[in-house]
Amino acid sequence: MLLCDIGNTSYHFFDGNSEYKKDVKSFNPATIKEKVYFICVNKNVHVKLKSLQNWIDLSVFINKNEYYQTMGIDRIFAIESVSNGIVIDAGSAVTIDVVQKEKYMGGFIYPGREAMQKTYTNISSALSYSFNFECDLDIMPKNSQDAISYGYLKTLYCEVMSHNLPIILTGGDALEFKKVFTDAKIDTALIFNSMKKIIKENEDKLC
Amino acid sequence: MLLCDIGNTSYHFFDGNSEYKKDVKSFNPATIKEKVYFICVNKNVHVKLKSLQNWIDLSVFINKNEYYQTMGIDRIFAIESVSNGIVIDAGSAVTIDVVQKEKYMGGFIYPGREAMQKTYTNISSALSYSFNFECDLDIMPKNSQDAISYGYLKTLYCEVMSHNLPIILTGGDALEFKKVFTDAKIDTALIFNSMKKIIKENEDKLC
Repeated sequence: MLLCDIGNTSYHFFDGNSEYKKDVKSFNPATIKEKVYFICVNKNVHVKLKSLQNWIDLSVFINKNEYYQTMGIDRIFAIESVSNGIVIDAGSAVTIDVVQKEKYMGGFIYPGREAMQKTYTNISSALSYSFNFECDLDIMPKNSQDAISYGYLKTLYCEVMSHNLPIILTGGDALEFKKVFTDAKIDTALIFNSMKKIIKENEDKLC
Repeated sequence: MLLCDIGNTSYHFFDGNSEYKKDVKSFNPATIKEKVYFICVNKNVHVKLKSLQNWIDLSVFINKNEYYQTMGIDRIFAIESVSNGIVIDAGSAVTIDVVQKEKYMGGFIYPGREAMQKTYTNISSALSYSFNFECDLDIMPKNSQDAISYGYLKTLYCEVMSHNLPIILTGGDALEFKKVFTDAKIDTALIFNSMKKIIKENEDKLC
């Protein structure tokens, strides 16, 4: 079974054993002849896939009333298999979504590591540092690198911890954020696991 | 008595009655003949002022050991007249500094409103909203504008409130942030008040 999570820059495949990525700009989805179950946040790719019968859009099986209209399908799938917890998906944006007793409570969006580093650099060249994810967040900073690292990380940390829920980390920067959310569980296959779950729940319609 | 707080873009004057600004690019400080007490974070302007005897640099009267080496002189002056509290200076950056029992405890830097709005827009055009400073921070968002407003404001709010100290707001966006920090005191003359205090404390050297 081939699964594919399509973002703005790449097709992210999982063939049951391994994961691999293809560039959105150069990859031609028509070259794949087997059945592919996908979700897609990229509007241009989405249009292209409509004409390919072996590409099956799993978003149609989601009850969108449980979420909100403009919420990205990748965010929805990241939490679809979570019954109780706060999911931090750390990519180009960091999305934080709360699920309690199987119910979606809402979520928010925070800038990703690279985007936020650029922000500080653009404010002043004196703030052009990489974030120190190992900065001690228990003491107030007294140097510029810690002052921006704390500004980026401690603020997020305080909000997330206030929910008092199990934390699940996913996305490309999950390992970096694990240094801050030390008790979090890392699950990089969260979206693919939800895709499998949705397929299983809808086997009758998908045959 | 003429006071001047010089930033990267403007000379900010206070003549005892009113405030006014002059553009760093076009204003010639040599046109002022009376005594001016100043602080300055702009390196180019600082060099220019060294040759003007009527421009008195107040930063020399600060005991910098109480702060840290790369800390901006405007941040130092914003807290110099605060004996107990957390100062939020909301400008192109938002600086947050903690003073307890007359002692500087440290501080951090968060992006200013405009800089952070640009960051979200650059991540995705779907996030190109103005922040809603009146967004209800007690409930998790379920729409995109609130999702970024909450991401920007609630995270900062959680950190600041964790100190359990009186909050003083200053800077160009003080009124916007007052909508979030409803119990905060606004004091836009914080830097000028510190300048007056430093002048008074050093009257003998300044005569």
